[in-house]
Amino acid sequence: MIQSPRGTRDFLPNEMERRRYYENILRTKASVHGFREIQTPIFEEAELFILRSGPNILNELYAFKDKGDRDIALRPEMTAPSIRLFVNNMSNDPKPIKVFYFGQCFRYERPQSGRYREFFQFGAEIIGSATPETDAEVISAAVAMIKGLKLKEFKVRIGHIGVLRQKLTDAGVPGEKMAEVLQKLDKKAYEEAKLILGGIGVSKETIEEIFNITETVGGPEVLDKVEGDAGEYLRKVLAFIKAAGITEAEVDLGVVRGLDYYTGMVFEVEAPVLGAEKQICGGGSYTLSELFGGEKVFSTGFALGFDRVLLALEREGHTHKSRPLDVYMVPASDDMRIRVFEITGQLRAIGVSADVDIMGRKMAKAMKYASAIDARFAVIVGKEEAESDSVVLRDMKTGEQKVVKTGEIFREMGLIRDGYFLTEDN
Amino acid sequence: MIQSPRGTRDFLPNEMERRRYYENILRTKASVHGFREIQTPIFEEAELFILRSGPNILNELYAFKDKGDRDIALRPEMTAPSIRLFVNNMSNDPKPIKVFYFGQCFRYERPQSGRYREFFQFGAEIIGSATPETDAEVISAAVAMIKGLKLKEFKVRIGHIGVLRQKLTDAGVPGEKMAEVLQKLDKKAYEEAKLILGGIGVSKETIEEIFNITETVGGPEVLDKVEGDAGEYLRKVLAFIKAAGITEAEVDLGVVRGLDYYTGMVFEVEAPVLGAEKQICGGGSYTLSELFGGEKVFSTGFALGFDRVLLALEREGHTHKSRPLDVYMVPASDDMRIRVFEITGQLRAIGVSADVDIMGRKMAKAMKYASAIDARFAVIVGKEEAESDSVVLRDMKTGEQKVVKTGEIFREMGLIRDGYFLTEDN
Repeated sequence: MIQSPRGTRDFLPNEMERRRYYENILRTKASVHGFREIQTPIFEEAELFILRSGPNILNELYAFKDKGDRDIALRPEMTAPSIRLFVNNMSNDPKPIKVFYFGQCFRYERPQSGRYREFFQFGAEIIGSATPETDAEVISAAVAMIKGLKLKEFKVRIGHIGVLRQKLTDAGVPGEKMAEVLQKLDKKAYEEAKLILGGIGVSKETIEEIFNITETVGGPEVLDKVEGDAGEYLRKVLAFIKAAGITEAEVDLGVVRGLDYYTGMVFEVEAPVLGAEKQICGGGSYTLSELFGGEKVFSTGFALGFDRVLLALEREGHTHKSRPLDVYMVPASDDMRIRVFEITGQLRAIGVSADVDIMGRKMAKAMKYASAIDARFAVIVGKEEAESDSVVLRDMKTGEQKVVKTGEIFREMGLIRDGYFLTEDN
Repeated sequence: MIQSPRGTRDFLPNEMERRRYYENILRTKASVHGFREIQTPIFEEAELFILRSGPNILNELYAFKDKGDRDIALRPEMTAPSIRLFVNNMSNDPKPIKVFYFGQCFRYERPQSGRYREFFQFGAEIIGSATPETDAEVISAAVAMIKGLKLKEFKVRIGHIGVLRQKLTDAGVPGEKMAEVLQKLDKKAYEEAKLILGGIGVSKETIEEIFNITETVGGPEVLDKVEGDAGEYLRKVLAFIKAAGITEAEVDLGVVRGLDYYTGMVFEVEAPVLGAEKQICGGGSYTLSELFGGEKVFSTGFALGFDRVLLALEREGHTHKSRPLDVYMVPASDDMRIRVFEITGQLRAIGVSADVDIMGRKMAKAMKYASAIDARFAVIVGKEEAESDSVVLRDMKTGEQKVVKTGEIFREMGLIRDGYFLTEDN
C-alpha cells in the first residue's frame, strides 16, 4: 500500500478544519496589523538558500536538478523567498513594506515530535525600515497572533545581537570565528565556547563577562549594565511594545539566533508546554536583499512554526469543534429523488450546507448516515407532504420532528451560522 | 539578481488578495455542497502518479531522489493523492465520502499563456458511490462553483466513456489499442484515428459511425440514438442536474478525457473567452483505489484549473477591488509616538486594521505614505488634542477632518467592514 512520504502528513477533514480555523486567526491578525499577504513558489534556485544560510544548508534541503539542469530546492523557510520577491518586484514601492506569508516548508531531517519534513510556517516581514518602532511592530504582531490563538502560556524573549558581537570583537575574536562562537552561545554550549575562546587567547575574566551577557535576563532595568547603543535601543523597543499593549516581553541577551544576517534586535517566543522543543516563533532585524542582487535594505521579520503552535494548543487542552453539516436530505421513496435534488439546490443557493442521499438508500439507512456524519437536521421528503409542498424537518440532536412548508425550512432551522449568514456573495 | 524559477510566479499583495477572494468562494461553495477539505503533501512517491497515469507521466514530473534514495515527485495533480489518503486513512468511514482540496501542482512543461510549471488546482471527489445521483452531485458542485465565481460564459459538456469504448470493442479494436484511439478521438485527430482504425481492419462505415458518436452533441434528446445502458444512465444524470438548478449542461459524447481510469460519465467545462486553451474544469467517474493497494471503490470527481479560471474572469472584465487599510496613525510630533502606539494597539484589539508611522517621519511625509498605501482614514495625534484625549480624524478620500475623542474613533469612522465587523474571536 502506498503511503505518504516519511515526515509528511495527510490532513483529514476535522484536522484540516481546525488548521484553517487557526490559520484564519493568524491571517486576520496580520491584516489588522497592516500586513498584506504574498506568495512565493514552493521551490527556488538552491543558491537563494545558500546565500542566506551558508552551504551547510544543502544537507537539510530537498535539492535536485530540474530537467533543464538547474539546481532547485524546496523552500526550507520563507524569509529568503520573500526578500527575493521584494528585490524582484517591490523595491520601488513606498517604504515600509509590510508583508506576510503562510505555507509549506521542507527540511530533510529525522522526523520527531512536532517536527516534520513538510511543515508549515506563518511569517511576516517589515521591509525598508530600521527603527525601534519597526522592531516593536514586528514583535507586537507576533505576540498579538499568539494571543489571538488563545495560547495561555508563552514567553517572549528579546535580545540584541549587537551586544555580544561588540563584546566578542572587543575581546579580539576574529570575524571568521564569530559565527561559530555565537552558535555555541546560542545553544548555551559553554564548555565548547570556552575552548574556542581560550584557543583565540581570550582571558578567563573576559570569557566570564561574555557568558554573563548571555545570562542577562529580566525587565528593562537589566539593560542598565549594557554598554553601547544596544541597551538604549532595546529600551525604546520595549517602551513601544508596552504601549502597544504587550506585557509578556522580557529582555534576554542570550537570544542569539543561529544566522549571520541578523543585524540588531532578535527575539524568540517559547511555549513551555512543549518541553525541550519549546520555541514556536523567532525573528529579528536583518539585511538580505543585497545578497540577492538588490540594494541593501533593512528589514525585521519573524516566522512562526504553525505545527508547533498547534501542538502547544493541543497540549494546553484547546479543542476545536467541527462545524456540522446543516441539513441532510432524505427521500422517503424513490419517486421523491428528483424533488429532493430540487430542494437541496434551493437550500444550497441561499448558503445552507446541505447534503443528499445519492446511494439510493432506504430511509432508515439514509438517516443512519445523516447521524454518522453529524448533520444538525434531516429533511425527509415524502409523497404525501410533497403534495402540500411540505417536508418533515427533524432535529438530529433532539429527535424532534415536524412538518414544515418547503419555503420555511431555512427559517424553521433557525440557521444562523456563527451569527453571520453565508449568502451568494460570500 | 536571483529570480523565481521559470514557470513559477510570485504573487504580490493585490493579486494575492484577489486569489484568496476567489479561493474562498470555491471553499464556501464546496462546504455548502457537503464537501470537506483534506490536504496531502506537496510531494509523493513517484510510483503513485505512474500508477494513475502510466510511465509517460515521468516526462512531465518534477521527479527526484531524496537523500534516502526514494523516488519522489512533486504532485502533478491531486486526485491520486486524495485517493491514496482515502485508502490509508478513511477507507472505513461511512460512504459516501465527500472531500475537496486546493493547492499547488507541478508539471515540467514549456510555460505558456495560462499554463505554469507551478499551478493551482481546486478539486473535489465523492468516494464510495456509483450512481447517476453521484455524478450529478459532482457536476452540480463544479458548476455551482464556477457560477459562484461569476464567470459569465461557460459550457458544460457531459459524455460517457462507455459509449465509445463499447463501440470500439464491437468494432474489434483490441484492448491494447484502445487508449491510443481514445486519445486521438479526444483531440479530434480524425485522420490519425482513421489510420489506426484502418490498420486494425475496421471498415470505413464503422469508422464513420465511431466519428459520429464523438460528434453527438445536444440536449437529452440526442441520447435517443445511443445504444446500451449509457444513454439511459446519462439521461438520469441530466435529470438530477436539472433538478439541482443547473441549466447549462449539454450532452457531448466526444468528451473522452485522456486517461484509462475513467469508468463512465466524463465531463468538461470550457470558458470560450480563453480561446484554444479553453478547458477550465474536467472530471468523471473512475476507480483508482485498487491501484494503490486498497479495495476497488467507485468515485466521481473533478479538478478545476484555478489559474485558468482566474484568467477567464480577467478576460471577461471582472476586477477585484483590494480592501483598503482602515486607518493610518500619524504622530504630529515625536513626543506623541508612544501615545500613537497605544491608540493603534487599542484599535487593532477591536479588529480595526491600523498601521502606524514607524520611520520617524514628519507629518506631511507620513500623510503622503498614508495616501500611497490607500488608507481610508488617517488619525493624527497632536499634543494639544492628546491633552483632551482627542485626535484628528481625516477622511483620506474627501480630505474632511475633525477632532474626535479617542474612544470615539471607531464609531466616527463608521467602520462596518462588508457589513460584518471583525472582533477578537474572528
